[in-house]
Amino acid sequence: MNPHFRPVALEHASRLLNHGPTVLVTSAHAGERNIMAAAWSMPVEFTPPRIAIVIDKHTHTRALVAASGAFGICIPGAAAAGLTYAVGSESGRDLDKFARHAIATRPGPVLGVPLIEDGCCAWLECRLIPEPHAQDAYDTCFAEVVAAAADERVFAQGRWSIREDNAALHTLHHLGGGNFAVAGRVIRAGDSGA
Amino acid sequence: MNPHFRPVALEHASRLLNHGPTVLVTSAHAGERNIMAAAWSMPVEFTPPRIAIVIDKHTHTRALVAASGAFGICIPGAAAAGLTYAVGSESGRDLDKFARHAIATRPGPVLGVPLIEDGCCAWLECRLIPEPHAQDAYDTCFAEVVAAAADERVFAQGRWSIREDNAALHTLHHLGGGNFAVAGRVIRAGDSGA
Repeated sequence: MNPHFRPVALEHASRLLNHGPTVLVTSAHAGERNIMAAAWSMPVEFTPPRIAIVIDKHTHTRALVAASGAFGICIPGAAAAGLTYAVGSESGRDLDKFARHAIATRPGPVLGVPLIEDGCCAWLECRLIPEPHAQDAYDTCFAEVVAAAADERVFAQGRWSIREDNAALHTLHHLGGGNFAVAGRVIRAGDSGA
Repeated sequence: MNPHFRPVALEHASRLLNHGPTVLVTSAHAGERNIMAAAWSMPVEFTPPRIAIVIDKHTHTRALVAASGAFGICIPGAAAAGLTYAVGSESGRDLDKFARHAIATRPGPVLGVPLIEDGCCAWLECRLIPEPHAQDAYDTCFAEVVAAAADERVFAQGRWSIREDNAALHTLHHLGGGNFAVAGRVIRAGDSGA
């Protein structure tokens, strides 16, 4: 448990993915657990908070998600770039990647999904919405967010606060081949800056 | 036409959206045209290049996309943050936003969709894949990319090249309320840096 994490109101949960960060997908079923990296996810609704994420049907994660009907989305900070690339390059079928990389987890408050706080900005606990056609044709899994939390140093009162003093918690955006752009500088184009 | 734009091979087109940029969606049908901002999009396949994007069923863009079966995704650079926020805050139902903001377009090479190059890093010309259920239940439109191009100063040989000297072409990632994080600093976590 990371003492900086605070619950995020469900109506603000989709904002955690609004700017397109690369994420870690966590899952568990019947004594097995896994973690993978995923660059392809997006919100699809604010209220109720729903998201879509691409999880290849040949991955071990996809099997665990199908069996459990649940998964976690953990958003790594810049300091976790090496870990993000590593867990995205290995298969969890014959390996417990949590143990290999000494990744601590906490159980999700609603579904018990393993969630990561150390090195991460935020997490979303998700319940799969069965959509067999989208899952089959596009590897796209829709889900409802049932709980969320974020490190208050970078996301508070429903808003990201990206500053020079929290650079380790800036989100990662995978360009390909293990190169990540970091969401750092902020442009305030809105009238209110709100 | 922007002289720095070069065609992107279709097998590399999904990389343009891989890191989660906020985009502009362009559309036209029967003498009407529109442009809106969209933060919620993602690739779903590399080959063939397919993407998913959330376009609210109440928008004018959605009506034009449904009628024409096509749309453009244009990726604005940091210098276009103000324009991106503006076109995301207005409805095009009673207004030609291209004219209002003096936005030049070129026709897409395959479908003739209006595409923007000035101020943008890249564009993807997309053919809607009819998926009535996903469109209805999640406002999620799946599409195949039929052509793509990018400004060679920031994307070449299938790869993003984010450097200090091309800051105006760094992508925007909407945090909410008109605040955009800019994908600037790059972390090379891959073994090869490839």
